[in-house]
Amino acid sequence: MSEDFLKSVEADRRIFYADILVDKAHVVMLAEQHIIEGHVAGAILSALGDLERRGEEFLDNVLPLYEDVHTAIEATLIKELGEDIGGRMHTARSRNDEVATCIRIVLREDILKLGSALNSLRRVLLSRASEETETIMPGYTHLQHAQPTTLSHHLIAHFDAFSRDFERLEDAFKRTNRSPLGAAALAGTGFDVNRERTAELLGFYDIVENTMDSVSARDFIIEAIACCSNIMVNLSRLAEELILWSTSEFSFADIMATGSSIMPQKRNPDYAELVRAKACTVFGCMTAVLSMLKALPLSYNRDMQEATPHLFNAFRATLSSVEVMRDMIAGAHFNRERMREEAEKGEMFATELADMLVRNHGFAFRKAHRIVSSTIAEICASAPDTLQARRDALKNRLKSKLSGIGLSDDEIDEAMDIRANIKRRKTAGGPANVEQAIEKRWEILKKDETLISHKEEKLRESLENLERETEKWIRKL
Amino acid sequence: MSEDFLKSVEADRRIFYADILVDKAHVVMLAEQHIIEGHVAGAILSALGDLERRGEEFLDNVLPLYEDVHTAIEATLIKELGEDIGGRMHTARSRNDEVATCIRIVLREDILKLGSALNSLRRVLLSRASEETETIMPGYTHLQHAQPTTLSHHLIAHFDAFSRDFERLEDAFKRTNRSPLGAAALAGTGFDVNRERTAELLGFYDIVENTMDSVSARDFIIEAIACCSNIMVNLSRLAEELILWSTSEFSFADIMATGSSIMPQKRNPDYAELVRAKACTVFGCMTAVLSMLKALPLSYNRDMQEATPHLFNAFRATLSSVEVMRDMIAGAHFNRERMREEAEKGEMFATELADMLVRNHGFAFRKAHRIVSSTIAEICASAPDTLQARRDALKNRLKSKLSGIGLSDDEIDEAMDIRANIKRRKTAGGPANVEQAIEKRWEILKKDETLISHKEEKLRESLENLERETEKWIRKL
Amino acid sequence: MSEDFLKSVEADRRIFYADILVDKAHVVMLAEQHIIEGHVAGAILSALGDLERRGEEFLDNVLPLYEDVHTAIEATLIKELGEDIGGRMHTARSRNDEVATCIRIVLREDILKLGSALNSLRRVLLSRASEETETIMPGYTHLQHAQPTTLSHHLIAHFDAFSRDFERLEDAFKRTNRSPLGAAALAGTGFDVNRERTAELLGFYDIVENTMDSVSARDFIIEAIACCSNIMVNLSRLAEELILWSTSEFSFADIMATGSSIMPQKRNPDYAELVRAKACTVFGCMTAVLSMLKALPLSYNRDMQEATPHLFNAFRATLSSVEVMRDMIAGAHFNRERMREEAEKGEMFATELADMLVRNHGFAFRKAHRIVSSTIAEICASAPDTLQARRDALKNRLKSKLSGIGLSDDEIDEAMDIRANIKRRKTAGGPANVEQAIEKRWEILKKDETLISHKEEKLRESLENLERETEKWIRKL
Amino acid sequence: MSEDFLKSVEADRRIFYADILVDKAHVVMLAEQHIIEGHVAGAILSALGDLERRGEEFLDNVLPLYEDVHTAIEATLIKELGEDIGGRMHTARSRNDEVATCIRIVLREDILKLGSALNSLRRVLLSRASEETETIMPGYTHLQHAQPTTLSHHLIAHFDAFSRDFERLEDAFKRTNRSPLGAAALAGTGFDVNRERTAELLGFYDIVENTMDSVSARDFIIEAIACCSNIMVNLSRLAEELILWSTSEFSFADIMATGSSIMPQKRNPDYAELVRAKACTVFGCMTAVLSMLKALPLSYNRDMQEATPHLFNAFRATLSSVEVMRDMIAGAHFNRERMREEAEKGEMFATELADMLVRNHGFAFRKAHRIVSSTIAEICASAPDTLQARRDALKNRLKSKLSGIGLSDDEIDEAMDIRANIKRRKTAGGPANVEQAIEKRWEILKKDETLISHKEEKLRESLENLERETEKWIRKL
Repeated sequence: MSEDFLKSVEADRRIFYADILVDKAHVVMLAEQHIIEGHVAGAILSALGDLERRGEEFLDNVLPLYEDVHTAIEATLIKELGEDIGGRMHTARSRNDEVATCIRIVLREDILKLGSALNSLRRVLLSRASEETETIMPGYTHLQHAQPTTLSHHLIAHFDAFSRDFERLEDAFKRTNRSPLGAAALAGTGFDVNRERTAELLGFYDIVENTMDSVSARDFIIEAIACCSNIMVNLSRLAEELILWSTSEFSFADIMATGSSIMPQKRNPDYAELVRAKACTVFGCMTAVLSMLKALPLSYNRDMQEATPHLFNAFRATLSSVEVMRDMIAGAHFNRERMREEAEKGEMFATELADMLVRNHGFAFRKAHRIVSSTIAEICASAPDTLQARRDALKNRLKSKLSGIGLSDDEIDEAMDIRANIKRRKTAGGPANVEQAIEKRWEILKKDETLISHKEEKLRESLENLERETEKWIRKL
Repeated sequence: MSEDFLKSVEADRRIFYADILVDKAHVVMLAEQHIIEGHVAGAILSALGDLERRGEEFLDNVLPLYEDVHTAIEATLIKELGEDIGGRMHTARSRNDEVATCIRIVLREDILKLGSALNSLRRVLLSRASEETETIMPGYTHLQHAQPTTLSHHLIAHFDAFSRDFERLEDAFKRTNRSPLGAAALAGTGFDVNRERTAELLGFYDIVENTMDSVSARDFIIEAIACCSNIMVNLSRLAEELILWSTSEFSFADIMATGSSIMPQKRNPDYAELVRAKACTVFGCMTAVLSMLKALPLSYNRDMQEATPHLFNAFRATLSSVEVMRDMIAGAHFNRERMREEAEKGEMFATELADMLVRNHGFAFRKAHRIVSSTIAEICASAPDTLQARRDALKNRLKSKLSGIGLSDDEIDEAMDIRANIKRRKTAGGPANVEQAIEKRWEILKKDETLISHKEEKLRESLENLERETEKWIRKL
Repeated sequence: MSEDFLKSVEADRRIFYADILVDKAHVVMLAEQHIIEGHVAGAILSALGDLERRGEEFLDNVLPLYEDVHTAIEATLIKELGEDIGGRMHTARSRNDEVATCIRIVLREDILKLGSALNSLRRVLLSRASEETETIMPGYTHLQHAQPTTLSHHLIAHFDAFSRDFERLEDAFKRTNRSPLGAAALAGTGFDVNRERTAELLGFYDIVENTMDSVSARDFIIEAIACCSNIMVNLSRLAEELILWSTSEFSFADIMATGSSIMPQKRNPDYAELVRAKACTVFGCMTAVLSMLKALPLSYNRDMQEATPHLFNAFRATLSSVEVMRDMIAGAHFNRERMREEAEKGEMFATELADMLVRNHGFAFRKAHRIVSSTIAEICASAPDTLQARRDALKNRLKSKLSGIGLSDDEIDEAMDIRANIKRRKTAGGPANVEQAIEKRWEILKKDETLISHKEEKLRESLENLERETEKWIRKL
Repeated sequence: MSEDFLKSVEADRRIFYADILVDKAHVVMLAEQHIIEGHVAGAILSALGDLERRGEEFLDNVLPLYEDVHTAIEATLIKELGEDIGGRMHTARSRNDEVATCIRIVLREDILKLGSALNSLRRVLLSRASEETETIMPGYTHLQHAQPTTLSHHLIAHFDAFSRDFERLEDAFKRTNRSPLGAAALAGTGFDVNRERTAELLGFYDIVENTMDSVSARDFIIEAIACCSNIMVNLSRLAEELILWSTSEFSFADIMATGSSIMPQKRNPDYAELVRAKACTVFGCMTAVLSMLKALPLSYNRDMQEATPHLFNAFRATLSSVEVMRDMIAGAHFNRERMREEAEKGEMFATELADMLVRNHGFAFRKAHRIVSSTIAEICASAPDTLQARRDALKNRLKSKLSGIGLSDDEIDEAMDIRANIKRRKTAGGPANVEQAIEKRWEILKKDETLISHKEEKLRESLENLERETEKWIRKL
């Protein structure tokens, strides 16, 4: 039992692939620096290649026998090559710099995957937004009908939130993609290692310079989970809307749903609910990691091992949620009639009515607001049955109240017209110019997609180069 | 009681100054766009100036009578200028875009203040680091003696962590300094407002374009508190070290302390303890804001009001902690003798001993590690009394164990020499080259200080320009 | 600045009243144990009485001059009585046991206040439940119409959740109401103090025995905030429902609302939104305190000072939220027609239809479920316009599908009848027997109200007795 | 991918055993109430028994094919028995009440296991405390030497903290062990089910009455995780001490440790570090669940599924940490000499010196404190080399300062004697009477151990009875 307590098998499985890369780069550098001999390097690199090819089988059968993946790999090499060869891989290195490097390698890929998924969600949002430019719906504040807008305008708001999430991931990437390798336990090493070289071989932008900092720093984990938290907040808001829109009362949308074990008529928005819930799982990772790193003296402490699974969990929850949301939005059926019907309710033209009095008749805004507000209240109190009756009553009451100013029926009708209302709101970023907004965002999105693919390509090139360097030493055997 | 429930007086006090700026920029723009007449603008701007000058007195006496600061200001203007003048300020605007703009104005200043404080902490750390390049101390992992290093090397590790915190603040600034103004309630307005103009007058880089996003987005709050959380984690780690170093057992440092009400001999590291504790207060703000924003449908919801105080509290706690830490480090007395004394303990030369066997005698690292490890264990079991006796025993045992390889006394002595040990660790970022590290960091710090002062200057210029534009309309009266 | 960093003025204001009580009990005990002379006790107690009467004035003018309230009180006594008298109050005591005792005194009152407020919310819920026993509404799962129920049944569900919250407060009270006083700094004292006596004078159930534990333990704070968190979760769920029910789309309820600065027609459910948000503020307190207390070595550390304001904030937020919720529920107008209208929608009779096939015709549940489910799906696909048309179509389809079993129109009609549906659900705790449920809960509530008033009375008696003992020594002067 | 998103395989594996129990009790009750026929019940119960025996094999091979464990079991039964038999198990039930019942069954066992582990940790603490009654050590506040105490006294403080944790688990148990079964989807059922009977068969104390509350309530999860959080806070404090005590600087203890991959001399307190870290994982579960349940409208929502794994994770982390801590304490070697040596340092007799002036010479406490304090400060400033020299200097300085009062050498010596110091602190719960304290706690512990075994026995009896009832129906086949 107490041995298991020390293990972190799940996280180690994820790290395995990165650890092999780190081992390779380290061994290539050791050979280049003449810290180990070429044939030793060749033998180790060849054995590492075998191990890599074993993959899952190694993880299932060998990893559980050891405390962690680093030990499992080294012990296997020693078993296969003998201590005199295999026992040289860990020269000028410690698990402290090794594991920090592995986590950064896994994380930078997770960031790219998540960035890519975000882009594909944004693509879907933009595509749906371009279909719904004429779909009138209530704009809400406090979940109350506030002012009319379009579904397109609404979807763009979500697009923009995810755009900032994308930016933050980019910023996190630049701080993540730096190499702690060569810091050894905490104070570097007496061997003449070349940290820049291993950083280059592994596709890092640079090294994390100070060696104590290299093995102590986990701020990149906090930053990454904070990015995920922000994404999940934004997803949960959209998920909440989808859940509301799927209710009988709203009936604005049909989304991915499941059935019930007891109620045959139901279509439950489980996907959206789970996205909403998984947000909280990510918040939990945030709390866990913050309190875990709090007050840890330098440099490495074992507490840090417990932080890694939270990082991986946060990314898994976030990535799967982004993907599910993309599918939900792509497949959503929006009920334009219901949206329009609700948009007509609730006197959402009130602001415009007051604004019209200001624009056309010189009223002070506050006064216009007061008049419209009280008139609506009077009408509501007398509670006419139909929407039309209410509007007629309102029109008449307003005209009689403001008889002196020459208020025309046309003026009032236009102010009360929901569509006209929307078209008049030409404010930058407003509902009247979503077409330009959409066009502009296609450009932004293309740029962001290129950012990701460019990074992916550079990593691929680095790792291909590492493979070539590895092969060189193996061939020399 | 229930009215108080709606209020956020403390946050509103902080926002007051920003709100006056927002009012001014909005009114100037309204006049420029001919949405209100010049003389109306002049009168309102003049009254706003008066209000600004009342400052604290207004906050103490008038604010408490109203639901929030926006209402208090408008109501005061209407009282003073009449509804026909004062009632025009809120034309083409809503409290939703107004408050979002105010929070961003306050936050961008908080970010600059915090960035500046961080720089001044970094300056102190670097300055102390340059004094302690020869101060040998134990380097710890798991709070166990691991390998010798210098206090300078250790302080630079902290410097570097705070440098990344500084970078993150910079990144947050660029997303914060954008203007939601003109989004009105959520859907823009039918008036021909110029959002870019108010953004420019208020020193924003750009507008937050989509109007629903403008009033709904609070991700910048999450990002800012995440920055604070990371800073506090880093501060708490340093604080923990100071607390440990102040114990009788460590006796590595004397820091800012207080007395006891009952134990006359005590010197309690209260400042460091409170820094450590305030980290958690900031984590609490993180949890609060994340769960608060979770699942809020667009656009504005009153829940958001409750988020703002957490933002301000997080910055207050972080700023004061950074400042206290700066003072603590500046005033700390480090006990170099005790650090050195401990550095001699605990066989911290063991890694070097093993490395020497690798370098000089061709041992495989794992084998050398195993031999040194077991030999130390044997010596410790026989428990010689003094440090010197233990070293002698170790040397003899090693020599007899490895008699075949011609191990010399000098080799072993050198490996066991702590200072030589440090000097040999020439790895990039290691303890043997802190001088270059310090020099490089003075450059980085200067650049970062310039970044802040440049931003401060640009904001100052913008606001001076706003003042000039304001004056123009007042003079036209 | 650095002095302010150490202060906790807000928390100290709340503690003042408790601190005077602790001072009195301690001085009475010191005199009884002959540790100080009677006339000294009399003089101190008399001065403490004066100080207590100064109240707010002392807090405004004197407290800010000192580090904390304990010091402020002692220093004032020394100033007034001279060190030879006033300097004896702190004999055999430390701020460590003193402050722990004060926090417990404040907390036990907060618990009683909150328990009392919860009871008054439960009273309102039960009262509304007894009015709405015939109000049919949709019962939701996944916010989808699931099965019909009554508003009464729904409100009782909330009542029961708050009943468990009440129980938890009771449990927390018994662990809170114990006295750390006499533990001194951490190791008791060489004076012959009587800890049981001060505990009795202060109305505590018992002492916190081990003296290190007395000053180190803050688990009662965690437990209390956990109670608040659970209450706030339950409140937030009810608040969410009120917000949904207030939407145009649901239109199930009118609740306490506010107007808009720009949209004259709006009624925003700000109170409910703020209750929902304040839940998260309390969660933040939980995170803060947990991470703050984590890994603190025994005994007292200054970090603990930072925990107290989170305790007080959590209770303030929770208490005010409970009170606001009580007012909201008491004043809510429920729209029975809309609830009924929605209850007719969505084939909520489906479960009953399947159950009827099981009961009357021996179908296996899963088969009946499958048949009803597919039949409804077919009908929905053909999309008849009206509710009635849909039901007729469903009836016919079912009858033709199951022609062999002799399904009667009456059977189907009854199964489809919402009211009959509800009446048939006689399961314990189900919607068909809310009357008995309500009656039973009035009994539970009365018992719980008595629990609180009994505790309040006992505390009052203890403090009156303390006052009498105090007077005794003053009279002896 | 999107199907996996809905699954909760890990949690479902844990629930499997409970689900079989729930199925059995439900089917027995259905037969007793004549809702299904006896032979149907017999067949289903027999098949459930087979399934139970398949255990792991079923979980590995069948569970992954279905959405959840409930569906997997029912589908398997239908496959084996045909729909006309197997399809009757889910009569009068829903997954909503089913899963809530399963979670409570698993949780109540987890609570008992954790309570039992806590008791065994307390047993070890008490046993070590009884060995260390004469082990003098520094008592700390602010991690500074404050007053001398014994290791026994210190360990009892931890014992008492865990005793309250035990109490809280007991309180949580009584709210957990209640049955939601029979609530069906949310509104009970039209079948004549007997909820009290299934509750009895499953060993529940009572039913969760209101049927909406039954399926909506997850407050018991919050309460349970809050209990775990408090336990983990207490464990983390002890773990922190063990980590400190294991440092070279303290050298107070040797505890369970591991080696280093690079530094052969190291013994790292990984176990204690991981206990400290796992505390934060539990805090993360708290944050996750609180924010997840926030604002969920009644009744069941899929979000709740995501809460269950956090409950199970919290208990796994807590249980393993308690067990590891028990082993660490049991195996710890305490270095009594070092503790004693440190206890002599730092003028920890200062309080007693001041107290002696109060007791023997009538000084006011504050004055005595001031004199001792300033005298010590003077001595420290002149910095005599050895402990003895410092004490002599202090004695002389005091005597000359207070020459008028006839201060004797003996008085001062006795006050300065650490052991005498401890013996004099006869305060209830103080270090002078740990023997009685230990005796009293053995009694408490025995009572608590009985509480657990009594509960375990009653559950065992209930489940044996359920097995008998099950057999009855199978035999009737």
